[in-house]
Amino acid sequence: MRLSRYFLPVLKETPSEAQIVSHRLMLRAGMIKQSAAGIYSWLPLGYRVLKRIEQIVHEEQQRAGHIPMLMPTLQSADLWRESGRYDAYGPEMLRFTDRQDREMLYGPTNEELITDIVRSNVASYKDLPLTLYHIQWKFRDEMRPRFGVMRGREFLMKDGYNFDLTRADAMHAYNRHLVSYLRTYERMGLQAIPMRADSGPIGGDDTHEFLVLADTGESEVFYDSNVTEISLGQRDIDYDDVGQCASVMEEFTTLYARTDETHDEAEFTKVPEDRRRSARGIEVGQIFYFGTKYSDALGARVQGPDGKPTALHMGSHGIGVSRLVGAIIEASHDDKGIIWPEGVTPFHVGIVNLKQNDASTDSACEGIYKELAAQGLTALYDDRKDRAGAKFAIMDLIGLPWRITVGPRGLANGLVELTSRRTGETEEVTPQAAIARLKDIYAPHL
Amino acid sequence: MRLSRYFLPVLKETPSEAQIVSHRLMLRAGMIKQSAAGIYSWLPLGYRVLKRIEQIVHEEQQRAGHIPMLMPTLQSADLWRESGRYDAYGPEMLRFTDRQDREMLYGPTNEELITDIVRSNVASYKDLPLTLYHIQWKFRDEMRPRFGVMRGREFLMKDGYNFDLTRADAMHAYNRHLVSYLRTYERMGLQAIPMRADSGPIGGDDTHEFLVLADTGESEVFYDSNVTEISLGQRDIDYDDVGQCASVMEEFTTLYARTDETHDEAEFTKVPEDRRRSARGIEVGQIFYFGTKYSDALGARVQGPDGKPTALHMGSHGIGVSRLVGAIIEASHDDKGIIWPEGVTPFHVGIVNLKQNDASTDSACEGIYKELAAQGLTALYDDRKDRAGAKFAIMDLIGLPWRITVGPRGLANGLVELTSRRTGETEEVTPQAAIARLKDIYAPHL
Repeated sequence: MRLSRYFLPVLKETPSEAQIVSHRLMLRAGMIKQSAAGIYSWLPLGYRVLKRIEQIVHEEQQRAGHIPMLMPTLQSADLWRESGRYDAYGPEMLRFTDRQDREMLYGPTNEELITDIVRSNVASYKDLPLTLYHIQWKFRDEMRPRFGVMRGREFLMKDGYNFDLTRADAMHAYNRHLVSYLRTYERMGLQAIPMRADSGPIGGDDTHEFLVLADTGESEVFYDSNVTEISLGQRDIDYDDVGQCASVMEEFTTLYARTDETHDEAEFTKVPEDRRRSARGIEVGQIFYFGTKYSDALGARVQGPDGKPTALHMGSHGIGVSRLVGAIIEASHDDKGIIWPEGVTPFHVGIVNLKQNDASTDSACEGIYKELAAQGLTALYDDRKDRAGAKFAIMDLIGLPWRITVGPRGLANGLVELTSRRTGETEEVTPQAAIARLKDIYAPHL
Repeated sequence: MRLSRYFLPVLKETPSEAQIVSHRLMLRAGMIKQSAAGIYSWLPLGYRVLKRIEQIVHEEQQRAGHIPMLMPTLQSADLWRESGRYDAYGPEMLRFTDRQDREMLYGPTNEELITDIVRSNVASYKDLPLTLYHIQWKFRDEMRPRFGVMRGREFLMKDGYNFDLTRADAMHAYNRHLVSYLRTYERMGLQAIPMRADSGPIGGDDTHEFLVLADTGESEVFYDSNVTEISLGQRDIDYDDVGQCASVMEEFTTLYARTDETHDEAEFTKVPEDRRRSARGIEVGQIFYFGTKYSDALGARVQGPDGKPTALHMGSHGIGVSRLVGAIIEASHDDKGIIWPEGVTPFHVGIVNLKQNDASTDSACEGIYKELAAQGLTALYDDRKDRAGAKFAIMDLIGLPWRITVGPRGLANGLVELTSRRTGETEEVTPQAAIARLKDIYAPHL
């Protein structure tokens, strides 16, 4: 993308309404614009990051065998009456009537709707196991929306639902989700720690939240510092392998790690003192097993192997897609701006032309821009006539992990600069070498 | 995808509530399920088609230089008061108040919101031209929602907005949209004829609707039959070329083609009698030029080259993404079911195993399934134990354009069957030849 033809309305001033760094940086980098309290438009740069995160979630869900579909944003109140949640759910649920006076709501979650779909269409245990998911906008009418997309009212979430014949099968689905979530976050350059949590209005026995450690997190968390040493890394996962999923689950959840809702001081003191940590965390996902709570209420049964009707064992599993954009920035920025992890960056590399309208730098930049595209790499090419300092400041603010700088001095020797946003280190290399280097760096992310 | 692990709840009975063929077939093929009047869940198969259409729209929009972003579903009433449309828009607009008693609405369109974004961030003519678009769910509270996704209440739409300094620039944007829409529909296997139309509540002088001819269309249309002979085909388009876009526009809009709203019997009789046609059409898109209507109302001005503030010339341009799923089926089906055009099919090919659990047919099917995936082709493999006739009926119903049938008799000679859904023609070929053939067929669509 050529910056001269893009829409990147960066702000010079720090907006006064933004209390946390991700909100400030998203506004300054021209990623979002508030359109109403807690409701945002995603400007082109922000939209690219959002789509990138959505794409990673889709890929990892489908790798785990989960089936994508799409439920609507608006729901009828009827199903929520059947489950008993219409009255139980608080004022965060946005309710209204349509022109025919039917009671409707903007879905904050989809247990009822998906259970209705499954009860209408699944009759036999032979149709199980089944895990369906979607990525759709939700609405929760927060009393005090704040922190930008971190606590907005309209937000994008992946929510998935497993339907199984037995508790054991459903626990495998639970473990499978845990493992696939770990991989999802790692691909985004995030460490998200699964912590035993409280189930809240979803209900159920087993639940883990995934928390990214950050000073601005809304949750207080307590953990054994060894838990931060574990990662999934590149290991091969067979999501059909019940034993392997259970053992990864155990590996990641045995050490003490809890939110304040489930924190147990007596248990915590069993952790060696030098490894006890309390900190703040941002919740970026949660998995639940809730047994037959919804299938009982809504009559979702199948014929079991013995011919008798049996209620489905269910769980639900969510990832806060739009919230992740903020969480990643909270975890990865400096005083100049955002530093995108390679997995989610809106463009792979920025190109800065130090002498726009000079035939030789223009032609070198065009050549690099085209060759990057031919190699499947996206570039944001700053082809505007502006000072070098101003161009660097924008690139630093919007946080592309790599920058190629093209100026007449280097070009005289056939060289350009390749700069890492994270370390600030610069190498002088040929354009070919810079492109080859970027191809290597991004190979795991293409 | 293996059918044994998929969620494809096909219906044996034709649902009584469905009045038109696309609605019946979408229900029977397990593509959608109604969750409230005019509100649908997209089951896995339907979701795949919806995403495919969305993808084509994205690609063609970006090829034309338009910039993707995303505006929210809910909007504040304030901006609509500023434009004067809050009261002007009828009961089709879903209005409600949030918990703080702020007046809100579910956006039926986005002229106000996008104009607000641009007026806040674009100050100079140098930032123009600019065309932003998004694909987002909309809501129109139809009094009588019907015809499935063809006239639903919650629907997915691409809406794009151009901002230009002059009327001439905006007319280039108009022509560019017309050309890119033609290419978009052709990639979906649809002929959509641009017809002079009425601007309705959007307002403005120039507008064309794109109509797909179909008996079930809601609009009466009148046209010169020669208009159905024109197509864009494979010609190269340079969307920056003002002359080329204008000449394509002229080519496609000079012959008589109008909806009943703008039909002029006197003009129509100038068409040679044997070429005069009246028919019904499904509206699948519309483009508008409305000058400074919204920029005047909302104060969207830039500094012109002469230093003086000047109101932006605007247009808006929509494609009915979810409605297209129905429109394509209306245009392409037979008495056995849907016939997907190659450009939008949910899977490229179906594989039918005639003797499931036979070592040799199973292994041949597995080999074909894996090789197709390696070649970038998606297959739906019916690996269930069922009668051949039942398997064929499902494949015919869901409409994959190609089917590979694997049975012991053919395999004895190293052959499988490759069958066209559209013509019913079958060839006996080796698995390698079938895959090579499919690769050729889908090359323009990958």
